Amino acid sequence: MSQPAGFVGVTANLGLKEGADDFAVVAAPAGSVTSAAVFTRSRFAGASVLLSRASDVSAFRGVVTISKNANVATGATGEANAREVRRLAAEVVGVRPEELLVASTGVIGVQYPMEVITPAIEKLYGTAAEADFEAIATAIMTTDTIAKVETRTVGGATITGVAKGVGMIEPDMATMLTYFFTDAEVSAADLDAVFRRVVDRTYNAVSIDTDTSTSDTAAIFASGEAGPVDLAEFEAQLYDAALALVKKIASDGEGASTLIEVSVSGARDDAQAKRVGKAIVNSPLVKTAVHGADPNWGRIAMAIGKLHDETDIDPERVRIAFGGTEIYPVQVSEDLLADLSTYLSGDEVSIEVDLGIASGEFTVYGCDLTEGYIRINADYTT
Amino acid sequence: MSQPAGFVGVTANLGLKEGADDFAVVAAPAGSVTSAAVFTRSRFAGASVLLSRASDVSAFRGVVTISKNANVATGATGEANAREVRRLAAEVVGVRPEELLVASTGVIGVQYPMEVITPAIEKLYGTAAEADFEAIATAIMTTDTIAKVETRTVGGATITGVAKGVGMIEPDMATMLTYFFTDAEVSAADLDAVFRRVVDRTYNAVSIDTDTSTSDTAAIFASGEAGPVDLAEFEAQLYDAALALVKKIASDGEGASTLIEVSVSGARDDAQAKRVGKAIVNSPLVKTAVHGADPNWGRIAMAIGKLHDETDIDPERVRIAFGGTEIYPVQVSEDLLADLSTYLSGDEVSIEVDLGIASGEFTVYGCDLTEGYIRINADYTT
Repeated sequence: MSQPAGFVGVTANLGLKEGADDFAVVAAPAGSVTSAAVFTRSRFAGASVLLSRASDVSAFRGVVTISKNANVATGATGEANAREVRRLAAEVVGVRPEELLVASTGVIGVQYPMEVITPAIEKLYGTAAEADFEAIATAIMTTDTIAKVETRTVGGATITGVAKGVGMIEPDMATMLTYFFTDAEVSAADLDAVFRRVVDRTYNAVSIDTDTSTSDTAAIFASGEAGPVDLAEFEAQLYDAALALVKKIASDGEGASTLIEVSVSGARDDAQAKRVGKAIVNSPLVKTAVHGADPNWGRIAMAIGKLHDETDIDPERVRIAFGGTEIYPVQVSEDLLADLSTYLSGDEVSIEVDLGIASGEFTVYGCDLTEGYIRINADYTT
Repeated sequence: MSQPAGFVGVTANLGLKEGADDFAVVAAPAGSVTSAAVFTRSRFAGASVLLSRASDVSAFRGVVTISKNANVATGATGEANAREVRRLAAEVVGVRPEELLVASTGVIGVQYPMEVITPAIEKLYGTAAEADFEAIATAIMTTDTIAKVETRTVGGATITGVAKGVGMIEPDMATMLTYFFTDAEVSAADLDAVFRRVVDRTYNAVSIDTDTSTSDTAAIFASGEAGPVDLAEFEAQLYDAALALVKKIASDGEGASTLIEVSVSGARDDAQAKRVGKAIVNSPLVKTAVHGADPNWGRIAMAIGKLHDETDIDPERVRIAFGGTEIYPVQVSEDLLADLSTYLSGDEVSIEVDLGIASGEFTVYGCDLTEGYIRINADYTT
């Protein structure tokens, strides 16, 4: 498998996780690198996010991640520790500290054990080698059950993306982290515009449980080593890789057994389609209906109805379908209901809604709500 | 127990439920009756809601309820059926059809079996007697496990309220229905103003699962037979009865084992306090933490952080407590965590948040999220 040129990396166990890597740093130390990044909008954003957000997000060369401890709600000490981790990790890959994005995921309200972390990172000096993206995807995992990596090519360049995030961590906090690395040459301004459009249609379109992490981070780094590429094709390939990662995140959602894809069309505009899609994919009643393989279109109608300010939504013009088979407003037979129940018991379920207003459309992704989610998140005591 | 004078009623089994009443009509046929009512804002509101909302909501004398069939998404036939049920029920209690509010709850997308309903209601002509509010509260139940009735007195007058609603029905759709009956003499304008204020602080402050029914209805009927009362005292007693019913609804939430009360203070204004309270009480991670008796304040911080547009919320000024015991930002001992875990395993849990901004405050009510909720809502196939 090809991979983007120019990136070096190190993964290691610093002693936070038992028997698995909890540290990953990757960067392109040479050449003219561009980057783009978006962060959680949480008012309780962690020290890593605050530090990274204060940097020039178009001038990152790479990212350092600590998993198992989110460094959130840790005050001035937490901020100083994030800065120190960044300084140490920058040494490992040979970049300046402010060129490294810092991300963390794990338990919140607990300080980094710097007496353990500092010597452990110092031992990694001089060990940087060609980046191993599978190892990086594994090192940033918390309750994820599979490492998430996707690679696409565009012209002579390669895009590799990694992601983690399944709902909760340790089990304390949901965090979604995703990074893309490419050797395509893309200006910082183009990279930012393309990345934001892709994120809006992928990461911002997925919801496991409506809860938003204090540490969410999405970033892309372009080393430029493969030279210029067609920008539209680059965006298409980046979108394709991001969508594949998003589907892996939703499928791996805590306790999830089914990926749910909700496609809304015929909306006033794309934004309305997204609101309707989110209302459906986030509804506990829709999520449990899918889990129960119950073709209960009434719950979808209910979820649409919740958007009471959208007065142009008229129940008389709404159409609802499962996997392309319309179920409202048509009268469906018992046989068809049985078929739809079989369809809903699959690993991936598509729900289509046509609002019959105009041509706005948006697709969102989520998962069913199961006893497994309750077990993971409740059957734990501090 | 005293009860409001002037109300007659009938409850019966029309043949929709097996072995339990599914029909209730209650009204004050004589005198100068005033009323107030609020309905679901769902874009998929049912035929009963549409018919009632189109009436003069200050001139109702009573209400007819059918439980087991919500008459939602039933088109023109559904509207005609709602009108016919109203006409028949009005005959039973001796009022004009347009003086009767119509409410329904149950399965959606299914027409009323009028060939069964019509003769069954006609058999009730002439049977109206003094209203039995316990029987009415029972007849409007669906998956509720207890009948919900609360009575308060104000001067020489009485207020009796009934409510139903635990998250889902049949199990198809959440519906909250609540009615208050009083013999106090209150003008329609005063009744409307008082009722809206009370509903905003009680019914609009409760959330079982964020899903909103197509049939929610709250109404109050004042027969005037006990004469005028002190309006402030009336409002206080009405609020007290409504709050008691709301707590019963939350405690009886589908699969719920714990009532959660979230009190937010120190907000910019009451509206901000309500948004913060709702974000907390609706968070699946907070709900499962309470279910697991886990004093995990990080999840509460996360839920507050989700309100990213509320830029005046500063983590440095936020304080979080369980049952009056502060847990953030203070450092808590292992002993205290154990005590808080014991506290969280009780039937009622209070979470207090002080935003440290100004003096806005609001309290919201909800319940924990359990395997029971999943079972009730998923383990069912059409």
